[in-house]
Amino acid sequence: MGEYEHILVKRDGATVTITMNRAARRNSLSEEHLAELLAAFREAGRTDATGIVLAGAGPVFSAGHDFGDVAARDLTGVRELLRLCTELMRTIESVPQVVIARVHGLATAAGCQLVASCDLAVAAESAGFALPGGKGGWFCHTPAVPVARAVGRKRLMEMALTGDVIDAVTALDWGLVNRVVPDERLDEAVTELLGRATKGSRASKALGKQTLYAQLDRPEADAYAIAVEVMAAASQIPGAREGMAAFLEKRKPEWTD
Amino acid sequence: MGEYEHILVKRDGATVTITMNRAARRNSLSEEHLAELLAAFREAGRTDATGIVLAGAGPVFSAGHDFGDVAARDLTGVRELLRLCTELMRTIESVPQVVIARVHGLATAAGCQLVASCDLAVAAESAGFALPGGKGGWFCHTPAVPVARAVGRKRLMEMALTGDVIDAVTALDWGLVNRVVPDERLDEAVTELLGRATKGSRASKALGKQTLYAQLDRPEADAYAIAVEVMAAASQIPGAREGMAAFLEKRKPEWTD
Amino acid sequence: MGEYEHILVKRDGATVTITMNRAARRNSLSEEHLAELLAAFREAGRTDATGIVLAGAGPVFSAGHDFGDVAARDLTGVRELLRLCTELMRTIESVPQVVIARVHGLATAAGCQLVASCDLAVAAESAGFALPGGKGGWFCHTPAVPVARAVGRKRLMEMALTGDVIDAVTALDWGLVNRVVPDERLDEAVTELLGRATKGSRASKALGKQTLYAQLDRPEADAYAIAVEVMAAASQIPGAREGMAAFLEKRKPEWTD
Repeated sequence: MGEYEHILVKRDGATVTITMNRAARRNSLSEEHLAELLAAFREAGRTDATGIVLAGAGPVFSAGHDFGDVAARDLTGVRELLRLCTELMRTIESVPQVVIARVHGLATAAGCQLVASCDLAVAAESAGFALPGGKGGWFCHTPAVPVARAVGRKRLMEMALTGDVIDAVTALDWGLVNRVVPDERLDEAVTELLGRATKGSRASKALGKQTLYAQLDRPEADAYAIAVEVMAAASQIPGAREGMAAFLEKRKPEWTD
Repeated sequence: MGEYEHILVKRDGATVTITMNRAARRNSLSEEHLAELLAAFREAGRTDATGIVLAGAGPVFSAGHDFGDVAARDLTGVRELLRLCTELMRTIESVPQVVIARVHGLATAAGCQLVASCDLAVAAESAGFALPGGKGGWFCHTPAVPVARAVGRKRLMEMALTGDVIDAVTALDWGLVNRVVPDERLDEAVTELLGRATKGSRASKALGKQTLYAQLDRPEADAYAIAVEVMAAASQIPGAREGMAAFLEKRKPEWTD
Repeated sequence: MGEYEHILVKRDGATVTITMNRAARRNSLSEEHLAELLAAFREAGRTDATGIVLAGAGPVFSAGHDFGDVAARDLTGVRELLRLCTELMRTIESVPQVVIARVHGLATAAGCQLVASCDLAVAAESAGFALPGGKGGWFCHTPAVPVARAVGRKRLMEMALTGDVIDAVTALDWGLVNRVVPDERLDEAVTELLGRATKGSRASKALGKQTLYAQLDRPEADAYAIAVEVMAAASQIPGAREGMAAFLEKRKPEWTD
């Protein structure tokens, strides 16, 4: 793995853990921090790992953009920063690995956007989630994009307009996270869910994940047009062949890709 | 009704019940089975029935595609099979009748897709739902299309990536089914909900159902453009006229279409 | 505020309250009533108010279209009425103020559409919600547009096809409203939630609200394209500048716009 200043990257078995490591700045997302996260996701994406955990060191998961890095920028400068941030979010969706957020403390603004952008998320009971731009000032326009696609419309409006923190159980009820567990069981629960989500052929799973994002917010006819073509092609790759053969021969599959 | 080998089709009053009847193969969806289901939905769609129940004989609702029918196919052959399957799902949405799934046992892969594609669904308490392609091998690309549109994004990811079975109460909580009832009350609950959903003018209801699918996953402005034109036209048909007249005259409506 | 016959409009501090005042007609939406509501929302939208409450006088919130005003119209006449109604719904979404529905009694058909179209909604425990076109006759085609975007697909189908009333707790569970409170606490809860949702810079919040509607039912890439441009531009307006400066200087922000 590359050398990073703001993040920690660790490979353990088939899992890469990327840890935001600016605890003193509440893991806020300066341009350099975003650039390192993007580079790390791209680097991990090119490995044969099957899962990526996104975590934060220190008291919170992430407080979102670093205002110290935004306040002095003109429109062009802010646009560049937001494009970099968006590229990170879209890369999380497009890497072949299953990406899971390990959320503790607070996930606010672009930090909440990271949670919404990960394929899966496990939260500690004490975690909170917010789009604090709603408290006034710079509105959470881009964080609201994936949050809108995870929670319902009225719930998005409440989060985005009030900026209030919702607790982990509410986040689970609204579909923003997949699990809520006692804080001391957070790592265990992340490992358990990621393990369930990374079974089987890596190639088939990667194609599956990427196709989900391609289809899931399009009109159904367009979504089917995409999914039928991918699924027909996918039926010919070794993972699918082995899965079907093992099923028909009543044996455990052996994955080669 | 036509002659079928793999399904049972029965008309009882205003309801057509289509029962998948390949119990020994867990109602898996071979090409012939899919073709019969499609033919039966088209045939029922041309009748004056107001409701269609989709059920499965034997221990499960449906286990999805029949790998014995997929494993030997090349890409073109699989694409043909998936197009046939998609045509079935889209036909369930486009027939003028209200279609309700009666789910017991397991509804997995394309079987879970059937549940998601029916207008309404009632599940027995013991029922389970899964997109098992997530366990590795051939991914549930096309089943995920309507499931994504019923449950939230994080929940779709969990079902699609893990392949794990969710129970009926979770399916209700996530919006995949409309009712969960004790197994022995399944038929009663299906009849009751279908009865509520098929009241009134058949022509108005059919137009209503078809317009819902036309608008529901489009940008709101496009959805309104569709709904306003249909609703204006619909105001002139006998069902709407009678509904309004009966309301204004404080009498029970009499439906002629 | 202008002179109205069918509605009451009141300004109190930073809040405009628009009350449907055709209690004897269950606040049904005749052409004149719709036109007054549209005019009032446009008028309030041009003021410096930060919030708008939409309420109903008498026993119910609103019973939807006034069949006495629909029954005699031809297709062109109904289309004009529906376009006016749609213009009202879209105006609620586009005014710069946060709009909150205060729902008691029943909100049915276009009345339920109003609730779904408001940014936020608080319901009394005794309130009910329905798309009664599903009982037969004229189907609730246009009310289903925003309701579909608030509740899930299977739930939309149940509401639209059965026409049955769902209670306030179900509406909360399905995401159609943000709060359910004892009837006697309705005004207090509306004021409290609206207060939380109207904090901060009016200009930033207005841009935020309008951008949410622009992005929330588009494919994610399109949504990001919109949100990035708006957020970059928004970073330069006084509200955002002040919000960031106050945060960095650890003081309370003072909003000038």
